[in-house]
Amino acid sequence: MALQPVVLCGGAGTRLWPLSTQARPKQFIPLVGRRTLYQQTLLRLRGLRGVNAPIIVCNRRHRALALDQARDVGVRPCLVALEPMGRNTAPALTLAALLSDPDDSLLVMPADHVIKDTKAFQRAVKVGASLAASGHLVTFGIVPTGPNTGYGYILKGKPLSKDTDDALNLSSFVEKPDLPTAESYVNSGKYLWNSGIFFMASSTWLAEIQRHRPDILAACRQAVDNGRRRAALFRPHEPAFSACPSDSIDYAVMEKAPKCNGAPCAVVPLDVGWSDLGSWQAVWEARDKDTNGNAVEGDVVLEGVKDSLVLNRGGGRVALVGLEGVVVIETEESSLVAGMERAQEVRKVAERARKGRK
Amino acid sequence: MALQPVVLCGGAGTRLWPLSTQARPKQFIPLVGRRTLYQQTLLRLRGLRGVNAPIIVCNRRHRALALDQARDVGVRPCLVALEPMGRNTAPALTLAALLSDPDDSLLVMPADHVIKDTKAFQRAVKVGASLAASGHLVTFGIVPTGPNTGYGYILKGKPLSKDTDDALNLSSFVEKPDLPTAESYVNSGKYLWNSGIFFMASSTWLAEIQRHRPDILAACRQAVDNGRRRAALFRPHEPAFSACPSDSIDYAVMEKAPKCNGAPCAVVPLDVGWSDLGSWQAVWEARDKDTNGNAVEGDVVLEGVKDSLVLNRGGGRVALVGLEGVVVIETEESSLVAGMERAQEVRKVAERARKGRK
Repeated sequence: MALQPVVLCGGAGTRLWPLSTQARPKQFIPLVGRRTLYQQTLLRLRGLRGVNAPIIVCNRRHRALALDQARDVGVRPCLVALEPMGRNTAPALTLAALLSDPDDSLLVMPADHVIKDTKAFQRAVKVGASLAASGHLVTFGIVPTGPNTGYGYILKGKPLSKDTDDALNLSSFVEKPDLPTAESYVNSGKYLWNSGIFFMASSTWLAEIQRHRPDILAACRQAVDNGRRRAALFRPHEPAFSACPSDSIDYAVMEKAPKCNGAPCAVVPLDVGWSDLGSWQAVWEARDKDTNGNAVEGDVVLEGVKDSLVLNRGGGRVALVGLEGVVVIETEESSLVAGMERAQEVRKVAERARKGRK
Repeated sequence: MALQPVVLCGGAGTRLWPLSTQARPKQFIPLVGRRTLYQQTLLRLRGLRGVNAPIIVCNRRHRALALDQARDVGVRPCLVALEPMGRNTAPALTLAALLSDPDDSLLVMPADHVIKDTKAFQRAVKVGASLAASGHLVTFGIVPTGPNTGYGYILKGKPLSKDTDDALNLSSFVEKPDLPTAESYVNSGKYLWNSGIFFMASSTWLAEIQRHRPDILAACRQAVDNGRRRAALFRPHEPAFSACPSDSIDYAVMEKAPKCNGAPCAVVPLDVGWSDLGSWQAVWEARDKDTNGNAVEGDVVLEGVKDSLVLNRGGGRVALVGLEGVVVIETEESSLVAGMERAQEVRKVAERARKGRK
């Protein structure tokens, strides 16, 4: 029973516009560190024993990005499943399960996260591996660093073993809370953030998706049975996959699992410097900063600037004067200037920019 | 005795970087309105009778800009004096005086100001014309709109005529004040801003510059006597002009004149929507704004933005999110993002940008 990494590259976020675009979404861009988030994900298990080459699931339009960026870091995927369109994570994982060795355990890793402490992550993966092998649905839960209202929360249960709290029962998943609720969650010490990182035997996943969403399994099975494989590239049958309902791993299976008599659920806490870089503010928080709190890249001149993120990936020069807490992102095509606290609203202008290009 | 406009285009301001550069300074850029400040200056006397074609004094590197932009608005200068280097306004005016008809009156107009109420300006010019004809050194004084510390002030004397306060004696010029002093000046109602717009007979100027700065007159006379004229272009003799001391009309003559027995001094108040556009904040103040207080130009998307100036003259799109009181200026080469209140410090980054281009 080997560890089979499954790297999910389906996201096409607009919250990091103008760097992240449909043609090159967030996971394929260097945002924190020299390598892209996808490359960092590929390298996150380096050094662990008994790990297969990864299965990549991505949109077919990102095939070149996925292959080239893997090659650049010396990783050769055992399979690249090219989705003709996005159907969220449950179908993506189901494709991977159907295409993997049924004896393997699937470590599900979204490609658009940053994890600073790789060693700690690998220790948690080892804890998860034995639970996955014994039939658990394992969720990795992030130790909260603040009352974030952008994440789902997980209520911890009792430790699975008296000797350690490396792994716990999972009581329940909780929807994204409002701020007072989030504060009470964090203060209670009983909650973790839902990271979107999961671990389970391939056979466990197939049994659970059959139990909760047999329609998804049936559509994916048809897409795989009628798909085409050529070397490491796998193309699911487009009509079948197109007909597959769209749903997330969380909604389709995980949130229902603790309440029924299926596979046992477990949560492994992660305290590893995790971020999903869900906004420019999160990128600023994750990056190294100078003594004025500025994270700066490219040809940039600052005069009296504090606590700001300035990424100049355009051809020219960018100068900032007398500002605090701003985000300035410059590409060859577009410039974004935003208040740090309002950086979530970037999505709105990104959508207007995409539609309304004069 | 005709009215001879003298348009001074010598400035090379860095306060409006990155739009204003040494190659194309502020007066040759459209900043408020469709036309450049230089073109607006050329058209400011349109409709007045007895006005000669203007004399232009500019740096020789801006010859094409000065000629092309004049032609574009249908103005044919009677003379364009091409300075080989800047020597400030006193030598520039002295060149113009030596090259003009000695019977004419010189209306000295800096090319880098905006004046919204042309009709009111022309009325003031008529008042100034009779004073200039009777031997006065006439200064135009702006009715202050606030305690600005960036301008020199003029202390008004008694009205020259009992019937009207269109023109007054000029008591004295006052240096740029600190803020409390500026506030007391403005509250007193006795002060005007020094606009840099002057009016005097050509012979009056030559007599006064001879009185106060004979060295400047001698150098300019030599530069004119040995200069070359070809059609409307006049090139002062470079070694002679290079040897000319650098000084402003204010320092060289105007500030001394009220205290000596030379030509009588007068001040004509101007309440005409004047601005010297000395900073991006001044540009924002002078431009039309939408209901959120934003002055916007080019391909720009705003989301939750107030009281800001956004000029996009680059090729791409600029988006702003959740900001108040910022200046964003985009050119093909550079981007500036500044707090409105700190816009004066742009000069610092402009200088660093010019020197330190990586």
